[in-house]
Amino acid sequence: MKFIIQRDKLTESVQDVMKAVSSRTTIPILTGIKIVATEDGVTLTGSDSDISIESFIPAEEEDKEFVDIQQTGSVVLQARFFSEIVKKLPKDAVEIEVSNNHSTVIRSGKAEFNLNGLDAEEYPLLPQISEENVFKIPTDLLKAMIRQTVFAVSTSETRPILTGVNWKLEDNELICIATDSHRLALRKAKIESGVEETYNVVIPGKSLTELSKILDDTNDLIDITMTENQILFKAKNLLFFSRLLEGNYPDTTRLIPTESKTELIVNTKAFLEAIDRASLLAREARNNVVKLSTLTERMIEISSDSPEIGKVIEEIQTDETTGEELKISFSAKYVMDALKALEGTEIRVTFTGPMRPFLIRTPENESILQLILPVRTY
Amino acid sequence: MKFIIQRDKLTESVQDVMKAVSSRTTIPILTGIKIVATEDGVTLTGSDSDISIESFIPAEEEDKEFVDIQQTGSVVLQARFFSEIVKKLPKDAVEIEVSNNHSTVIRSGKAEFNLNGLDAEEYPLLPQISEENVFKIPTDLLKAMIRQTVFAVSTSETRPILTGVNWKLEDNELICIATDSHRLALRKAKIESGVEETYNVVIPGKSLTELSKILDDTNDLIDITMTENQILFKAKNLLFFSRLLEGNYPDTTRLIPTESKTELIVNTKAFLEAIDRASLLAREARNNVVKLSTLTERMIEISSDSPEIGKVIEEIQTDETTGEELKISFSAKYVMDALKALEGTEIRVTFTGPMRPFLIRTPENESILQLILPVRTY
Repeated sequence: MKFIIQRDKLTESVQDVMKAVSSRTTIPILTGIKIVATEDGVTLTGSDSDISIESFIPAEEEDKEFVDIQQTGSVVLQARFFSEIVKKLPKDAVEIEVSNNHSTVIRSGKAEFNLNGLDAEEYPLLPQISEENVFKIPTDLLKAMIRQTVFAVSTSETRPILTGVNWKLEDNELICIATDSHRLALRKAKIESGVEETYNVVIPGKSLTELSKILDDTNDLIDITMTENQILFKAKNLLFFSRLLEGNYPDTTRLIPTESKTELIVNTKAFLEAIDRASLLAREARNNVVKLSTLTERMIEISSDSPEIGKVIEEIQTDETTGEELKISFSAKYVMDALKALEGTEIRVTFTGPMRPFLIRTPENESILQLILPVRTY
Repeated sequence: MKFIIQRDKLTESVQDVMKAVSSRTTIPILTGIKIVATEDGVTLTGSDSDISIESFIPAEEEDKEFVDIQQTGSVVLQARFFSEIVKKLPKDAVEIEVSNNHSTVIRSGKAEFNLNGLDAEEYPLLPQISEENVFKIPTDLLKAMIRQTVFAVSTSETRPILTGVNWKLEDNELICIATDSHRLALRKAKIESGVEETYNVVIPGKSLTELSKILDDTNDLIDITMTENQILFKAKNLLFFSRLLEGNYPDTTRLIPTESKTELIVNTKAFLEAIDRASLLAREARNNVVKLSTLTERMIEISSDSPEIGKVIEEIQTDETTGEELKISFSAKYVMDALKALEGTEIRVTFTGPMRPFLIRTPENESILQLILPVRTY
């Protein structure tokens, strides 16, 4: 194998596939990056067996030459060293040449690295996914749907299924749900798909977080294919495979209250900042709990009390407060996470009593919903 | 005590004095910030007994009002909570009022915090330093002298005196020296002082690092006063006290070679980047060692070899290579630290053989010197 490649293109691809490489793997060769050169270009692959990422650098694109392939071939190089080296090479052109015994020379300017490589034949094969039943979603919408749900997955392995996000595809609608059993985030969107089958899968939260980091903020369409145990996201020059979680995701529809006894509409930023301030003293004591009380038609109060440190109290004007009087306590962190996930300058919060889950939404928008369980303090 | 203060001024002062506050202190009241309001303004103090910082916010300055003092007095507030609260207050004006039992109300907009305070009388007094024998140094020069030496102090407590920087003041010259016994950094400068006495003190490296963070990049003069066990830096509205280290600093003058057998002049950036690249593979093996070999009159080679990973070799053009041929090994980290501390596009490196300490300086500038001990590899 021998080729000359543009450093910036190589750096970018290496950084993408590195997102799948873990230093803590039981399969030693997976600490490496697989490099394959064909007449068409260079393909890099990184994997930790849960996530696999393949990035392709075409030899030519739109009349620009990115790679000069002089001899096809393949090798696996230690990911940590290779990625560090590529970043620090002195010149724009990089020559990579594999000689005997997979020993690989990386040349740029007057710097010459010689890395011990491994046989690419030993590298595990990627899942084979037939590209039937593909549905498409714009990249920016996909990133928004991930961002607005993935923070709510469970970080505990007690119920492994809750560490994933539940994706349901039915009647050309995609519904994403995440819950750690203290709060729930739900986001849905109409999808243009020719897929007639319904799907109900659970994608590891970590996979979605890594995918989101790699994708650019464009509205280019991403192709998505699901099988029984894998999901494949296909963007331009990029394949992202993730294992799916096994097991049934709990039915969460009955958790979501349909009635409401108290409702308020309030400026998102003012509400978020007041809760942030109230939580400053609550962080030490009692698991970050703050209290909300309705005062008058257009005023609520956010407060917190930590006897050893002090207390804080703040009034916020609302656009509207309707229904029953209410005093309720909740985790400041959960409410702040939910508020940050919502878009829009105003939010609508609906309560059905101090012991029942409450909902945070943006007014007039049913596609996103955040549910929080209160904390019993009275 | 009651006053209304500008939030930005308060935030800045709190951040400065926080640099001295440690959460790991044996004196509980030192986890707090002392606040004293007089007719002239508000003084904040933070201390960990090694370092003490006092920041003053004048009631008025240049016809601008920063504080409206309504009642003089004092209190000590928990530093961690107070600093977080101040940063997140909603409005530009902040009212602070101490009521019964040192309980303190902090009001801004509609937010009201109530913090349990402590009696300021219980707070330790700052060292009393008579301001005789003051010498002055521009802030930017002081910061440069700290930056160019403090990185070379020892991080090990085996010889506590080496965790400090040795400052010697004699004949209107200030000499700063730091060494961890593997490398040494020396910086000197002419100082305009009326001080006739000579001083020889050792200042903890940590104190100088914190001082450097607080000082702005101006050429305003800083007043410096040394006593037997304390040093005081006095800037506008700021006092910075540090304990001095006890014991005699080793005499380092005999360590510095006066002759030279091989000398090279090379571009700083090219030299630094080549060593950085060579060290990529060396980080794992043998303590980050790279090798330098003279090749021809205008060419040297930087290399490193880690049998399990691979090897790297790079040629660098020099402006001049004179004297004996040389092969020498050294810690890449020490040389990179030294190169980053030097100013100027070119550096002069002088060797007296592969087993002897070598010197890195900027050509034509005797005020700064970096000495490195080689590593035995042949």
